[in-house]
Amino acid sequence: MSRSVEKKRPGRPEGTGDNASERILDAAETEFSQNGYSETSLRIIARQAGVTQALLSYYFGSKQGLYESVFMRRSQAIVQEREESLAELFSRKKTPQVEDVVRAFLKPTVVLRETEEGRRFLRLQARLHTEPLEVAYKLREAAYTSSTKKYIEALARVCPELSDKDVHWKMVLMIGAYLYAFSDNHRLDEIAPNICDLKDTEEILEQITKFVSAGIKAK
Amino acid sequence: MSRSVEKKRPGRPEGTGDNASERILDAAETEFSQNGYSETSLRIIARQAGVTQALLSYYFGSKQGLYESVFMRRSQAIVQEREESLAELFSRKKTPQVEDVVRAFLKPTVVLRETEEGRRFLRLQARLHTEPLEVAYKLREAAYTSSTKKYIEALARVCPELSDKDVHWKMVLMIGAYLYAFSDNHRLDEIAPNICDLKDTEEILEQITKFVSAGIKAK
Repeated sequence: MSRSVEKKRPGRPEGTGDNASERILDAAETEFSQNGYSETSLRIIARQAGVTQALLSYYFGSKQGLYESVFMRRSQAIVQEREESLAELFSRKKTPQVEDVVRAFLKPTVVLRETEEGRRFLRLQARLHTEPLEVAYKLREAAYTSSTKKYIEALARVCPELSDKDVHWKMVLMIGAYLYAFSDNHRLDEIAPNICDLKDTEEILEQITKFVSAGIKAK
Repeated sequence: MSRSVEKKRPGRPEGTGDNASERILDAAETEFSQNGYSETSLRIIARQAGVTQALLSYYFGSKQGLYESVFMRRSQAIVQEREESLAELFSRKKTPQVEDVVRAFLKPTVVLRETEEGRRFLRLQARLHTEPLEVAYKLREAAYTSSTKKYIEALARVCPELSDKDVHWKMVLMIGAYLYAFSDNHRLDEIAPNICDLKDTEEILEQITKFVSAGIKAK
């Protein structure tokens, strides 16, 4: 779906190289996450990245192409890490626990929250379902659905007593619980000022894993 | 915060009465939930409601005043029902179970999902934290925070073994789980097509209550 970055094409304009494409992606991530898709202009992104609009178009084509590249850059890193952890868990002699599967799922995004760039991407993702463009859904599906299905299978293996319907519900409720806690710090601060520390990665991972694992096991 | 509706003021323009203010609120809810705050114009709302812009301004003042009235209309109905249920639970001789408290919290929004207007409001609310305006946060705080705190107290009473920090985390994760399942049907259809039925109110209430109650009880 995303156009491959740093592709060498004949006649590329001056200014390529020097991590220009990464700078464009960073600037675009900032703008899209702050202002949403429709309020963001390529002109401003180019200016923030210190490149010409011609160079931006050379790398990413349209605004939609750029948005896709921004989204896929980090979502594919998350997905890869999730799938590697899952494969590692099931390669062990002992069947993994529910908690192991939940932690493998959560870990890459919890870690992402530790950096400013990571938080930027999580904000972008939190806005995704309010974006008016149909492309947003296709993008999310392309990015995550296959990996989410692997986790549904994994949950069904570690909780064989659950029905197919139960496992799907639990997956959806897990995604909702962690996404909300991650994307909406402001609300947690309103509800629990100075009580819950959203900067403490271990606390977050521990609290969400405990809550979600018990929810998954409930019959 | 919201200006009282149907207030009789001297010199009100023709066209008042006849549920005009309700029609305006309905049209505004539709527009705001579909297009967000900044993309919505009072002109279009007035046209959809079949009133003049003068009448709209007479009732609600500015766009912000109208947005607040739209938000407060249904959120205050939710809050009132939640608080009445809670008072009823704790007026009984037997201490309520976690499940009772969770169900009392979820019920008003689950019921709201049964009507087109209710779903419209839930979409509006789901967009709230991506709205760029600072007023959105103040509005949510004004609408919900006092009632949310009553539920945190109630959870602490029915789960005395939990720490203060735990109870706050669990409240946030409960809100995240149900909001996501409610506001983003599209994602549930992608993940679980024809498996989870988001039109079945009993199924929803049962699945979320089971998951969330077990999560809350987990130590």
